[in-house]
Amino acid sequence: MIKVIVDCFGGDHSPTENILGAIEALNLHEDLFILLTGDKDIINPILEKETYDKSRLEILDAKEVISCNEVPTLATFRKKDSSLMRAIETLKDDESYAGMVSLASTGALLVGSTIKIKKLDNVIRPACIPIMPTMNNDIVAVCDSGANVDCSKEELLQFAEMGSLYLKCCFNKENPRVALLNIGTEEIKGDNLRKEAYPLLKECKSINFVGNMESRDLLTGDYDLVVSDGFAGNVLIKSTEGTAIELLKLLKRTFTKSFKNKMGALILKKDIYEIKDFMDPNNYGGALLIGLRKLVVKAHGNAKRVSVRKSVEIVYNLAKNNFLEKMKEELAKTFVEEKQSVEEGK
Amino acid sequence: MIKVIVDCFGGDHSPTENILGAIEALNLHEDLFILLTGDKDIINPILEKETYDKSRLEILDAKEVISCNEVPTLATFRKKDSSLMRAIETLKDDESYAGMVSLASTGALLVGSTIKIKKLDNVIRPACIPIMPTMNNDIVAVCDSGANVDCSKEELLQFAEMGSLYLKCCFNKENPRVALLNIGTEEIKGDNLRKEAYPLLKECKSINFVGNMESRDLLTGDYDLVVSDGFAGNVLIKSTEGTAIELLKLLKRTFTKSFKNKMGALILKKDIYEIKDFMDPNNYGGALLIGLRKLVVKAHGNAKRVSVRKSVEIVYNLAKNNFLEKMKEELAKTFVEEKQSVEEGK
Repeated sequence: MIKVIVDCFGGDHSPTENILGAIEALNLHEDLFILLTGDKDIINPILEKETYDKSRLEILDAKEVISCNEVPTLATFRKKDSSLMRAIETLKDDESYAGMVSLASTGALLVGSTIKIKKLDNVIRPACIPIMPTMNNDIVAVCDSGANVDCSKEELLQFAEMGSLYLKCCFNKENPRVALLNIGTEEIKGDNLRKEAYPLLKECKSINFVGNMESRDLLTGDYDLVVSDGFAGNVLIKSTEGTAIELLKLLKRTFTKSFKNKMGALILKKDIYEIKDFMDPNNYGGALLIGLRKLVVKAHGNAKRVSVRKSVEIVYNLAKNNFLEKMKEELAKTFVEEKQSVEEGK
Repeated sequence: MIKVIVDCFGGDHSPTENILGAIEALNLHEDLFILLTGDKDIINPILEKETYDKSRLEILDAKEVISCNEVPTLATFRKKDSSLMRAIETLKDDESYAGMVSLASTGALLVGSTIKIKKLDNVIRPACIPIMPTMNNDIVAVCDSGANVDCSKEELLQFAEMGSLYLKCCFNKENPRVALLNIGTEEIKGDNLRKEAYPLLKECKSINFVGNMESRDLLTGDYDLVVSDGFAGNVLIKSTEGTAIELLKLLKRTFTKSFKNKMGALILKKDIYEIKDFMDPNNYGGALLIGLRKLVVKAHGNAKRVSVRKSVEIVYNLAKNNFLEKMKEELAKTFVEEKQSVEEGK
């Protein structure tokens, strides 16, 4: 049985969509067990209307909620009876749980889980790795997307190693193509950090490094994993999402501008909805906080049930494929290799 | 008479579109004089078909071309008879010329013009400031978009000051709203550079600083100038452009996928073209290299005549509004103020 905790509060459509997403996952996977954290009196009436295997779902009562406006560190430690902190504490203390999904603010989730759950041995710093759709109906992951704003070259290398393993274990990508986010594709391009990181990535045998990439090519499908410091990674993710949102708004305005246009749009309706769906983060799972001792997935703040279900499935898939065990081995190996390299004076 | 040099070679549609863009500008402004640099034997046959005031146009013969694949420093200095180097040398030596427009590679143009034309007194480093369209039919400028990948807080402050003056003199923006590109809007957000730059920008009296902004809001029209280091600025610009391009491709595929869709698209044709035009960098002028002793505008590599014409008009407008004189005054003032602040032990 794979046991996953779902934080029912936090997020624009919580708790209903959080709960319904968890139920969807439960009904799809017979060896999945879900623990919901949050106010029992609010959760139970929603559950009552649903059909699911009751032996595989439990509720852990928690009366408080951490809002997006609270300072992460304070909120995390003061509100011990929040649905988020109950989830984190349970994940930390109960070995039987593989991971958790939360829609809480990235800051609160990151601070709480890093301090309580702690990082794996040999991990420099945990990172945030969201996935995005590409134009050839595949996905691309970005690591780091904002957890670490000031990074070293060694961190970038580790993002590449951890991210590659993630794509192998969760999305069946055999030999993920890793690219370094840069301002040009030539090897000599970039700031000091990129110039230092490039040779490290190039020499690393455990990853499939394909070179530098430019932000304009994120969605082309030419890359599986984009490695970046958290600052530029955050700029990349948000500008891609933001541009898509603004363009879709513009399209909507065009389609409803006149009676004639409305007729044209009606003919195209189904296919236009497909484009909208395609760009909607709601149809993808959340971002894994990679490098922790347990699996923690941050779902979008505006996630609906599909996105919550897919986030639960990220934890489920990774647990089934022994992701954390493989990562421990990989990190230990790399750590030994690097030590040897240093000793050999390479 | 405002005298502007146009480099006729370099760019995907050169020399024809470079020349036709220059002619368009010439026919719109009676007090504009154009010097075309490039191979006379290729330029003349194109000119012969056009109608324009021949007394306001000259050609400076140059037989070599710098391609995009050449290493900028080498190319710039070895190819003395290239259309780019002839343009730069003339701009440097002949006081009567206000500025130049080139479609050559950013690297070659930046290296060539920084070394030959030199920067204005008190400028730390010249920067690249492109403009983009916003959803409310206005524009937003980004400084720096890639000329300086490793920046100090003082440089970010100067980008804000120089960029504000640019928007005032070229686009009649009285009090441009300046934002700092960051990973969140709260004051405490960001990496070390952002945390250091924020108070400097907040305290600066010569700019209208409105706080941090996220990359997703670039096109909303809430900001006039986005200040960033060149690395993140480059990621921002290119991911915005790239996402728009990929989405428009997707839209095109949808519109041509079936007979039914083609009919729907036919009805919407005019308005869809408007969206396409709106996102097309070709309909906007190029990026000013700001901080140099003369006006140098880098037009898009795929610029067509409209974009070349608008790039010429950037130089024309700035020259008419005494931009460089105002910038010298502004920089001298800021320089004195900062020196005083230091002396007063602030």
